[in-house]
Amino acid sequence: MLPFSRITIIGLGLIGSSIARAVRAHMPAARLTGYDADPEVRATATRIRLVDDVADSAGASVVDADFVILCVPVGAMGAVAAEIAADLPSDAIVSDVGSCKESVATALAAALPGATIVPAHPVAGTEQSGPEAGFATLFHGRWCILTPAPQTSASAVERVAEFWLQLGADVETMPADHHDRVLAVTSHLPHLIAYTIVGTASDLEEVTQSEVIKYSAGGFRDFTRIAASDPTMWRDVFLTNREAVLEMLQRFSEDLTALQRAIRWGKGDELFDLFTRTRAIRRGIVEQGQDDAAPDFGRAHE
Amino acid sequence: MLPFSRITIIGLGLIGSSIARAVRAHMPAARLTGYDADPEVRATATRIRLVDDVADSAGASVVDADFVILCVPVGAMGAVAAEIAADLPSDAIVSDVGSCKESVATALAAALPGATIVPAHPVAGTEQSGPEAGFATLFHGRWCILTPAPQTSASAVERVAEFWLQLGADVETMPADHHDRVLAVTSHLPHLIAYTIVGTASDLEEVTQSEVIKYSAGGFRDFTRIAASDPTMWRDVFLTNREAVLEMLQRFSEDLTALQRAIRWGKGDELFDLFTRTRAIRRGIVEQGQDDAAPDFGRAHE
Repeated sequence: MLPFSRITIIGLGLIGSSIARAVRAHMPAARLTGYDADPEVRATATRIRLVDDVADSAGASVVDADFVILCVPVGAMGAVAAEIAADLPSDAIVSDVGSCKESVATALAAALPGATIVPAHPVAGTEQSGPEAGFATLFHGRWCILTPAPQTSASAVERVAEFWLQLGADVETMPADHHDRVLAVTSHLPHLIAYTIVGTASDLEEVTQSEVIKYSAGGFRDFTRIAASDPTMWRDVFLTNREAVLEMLQRFSEDLTALQRAIRWGKGDELFDLFTRTRAIRRGIVEQGQDDAAPDFGRAHE
Repeated sequence: MLPFSRITIIGLGLIGSSIARAVRAHMPAARLTGYDADPEVRATATRIRLVDDVADSAGASVVDADFVILCVPVGAMGAVAAEIAADLPSDAIVSDVGSCKESVATALAAALPGATIVPAHPVAGTEQSGPEAGFATLFHGRWCILTPAPQTSASAVERVAEFWLQLGADVETMPADHHDRVLAVTSHLPHLIAYTIVGTASDLEEVTQSEVIKYSAGGFRDFTRIAASDPTMWRDVFLTNREAVLEMLQRFSEDLTALQRAIRWGKGDELFDLFTRTRAIRRGIVEQGQDDAAPDFGRAHE
């Protein structure tokens, strides 16, 4: 049973193009329409036959859709929703893939009064961007979080849940504000810290950038992957989920200061205790299939 | 040409056991002796035939060695060197694999007066520990940094360099204090930050540990790998390379505060500029073969 048969994806970057490929793989009977504001991306999507039809405008892409997924940076969601408002069929369900849910839900509801909206966030990605970076298995075994407003029709929520299940994801539902706090710590703060340390390392005087690159296998390189993520997407995330990010950042800074003090005063026991405790979380992540069990993320060692 | 023919490895954890396997693979004619202070590790080393002989004491392991490599936590280097002092042949070369070089060099020189010492640091590892975690290719394409004192015989330095080259590493030489500043930023600070954020995430009240684990694929999981590294080794690193770590941490904290301020005041341009700049470092690391070119570290997506 196909949850939707005429699917429109607006925004054909890493996530949008991965959804397109996953729909092709798992729901080959569904018709796929795509649109991207960037003409080059539209040309690429046409060339690689990412979807059945590449539309010339956001409005034209939704005219007979039964499911519309907005895959644009969270700061652009409201404007894109406004672009499709006049052409959106009244029975279509609108969803998105944004990393912040409260502000996106507000923006979509304001731009699309009366529409059925089921905000979603597939917690998956890579550091690469663009229509050629996507792949069909990106969502396999990952969680997709739905944050419908309480008054949303249960059958609409179920259809969107079924869509993600058929793409290989697990589905969870929670309030938008709780989502934003959870993701502030599991995604937004890690990105912020990764961007910061890569900036710090590249600004040193006595250690050259070439040395930072050469000796990055000591741990630094792990952070550079995340810090290579899409700048527009992440700028929007931090500006949009500001309060939750600032609160998590405050907690992190306090903990870092405590550790700094332990190092300064030679309190080895405090360090050892923390370093032992953190191993358990890694074990949980590997046991629950949220990361490779192989050492070093399964990186090739040849 | 074998640089050494009778090699002793003291400390049979991840690095020591990887050296043993790499020696077997690349210098099969060399005789390998091993020792570890932990009787269980010695028993495992014997069972898996990691080396030709497992000695019963540090002293006994070096009696006719021409090369002795200390692969113990940096806080234990001085004590282990003192244990082998009486039995060390006068023409043997002593080296180590510690992540901090200035204090280790001082400790080794004090415990082994008159010995030829060539401190080394192979910048390689995984988050796993113990004699069964090692593998022969761990050093392939990684850098090994030598930090000999200026008066050290050039031929001794060359033999140790040749040893690491034959194990597949690239070799660089630099002063110990410079090494400690470089590694403070490319290895020690990243570990400190990873340990901190994993601690912060596991101490939250409104977000459960189970949620942190479920949604870790948003970025957090990358940090948990590093934060699963050996607690004793890392406690010692922070206590030993204290000054350089504290200085790098201070710079990081300043940069993080600047970013925090940019988020609070909605300065999207500042965020975007940094996030664009950090992509270049990642490109350098991938181009120079210090990380997988595949997206997501080459993690399996099935």
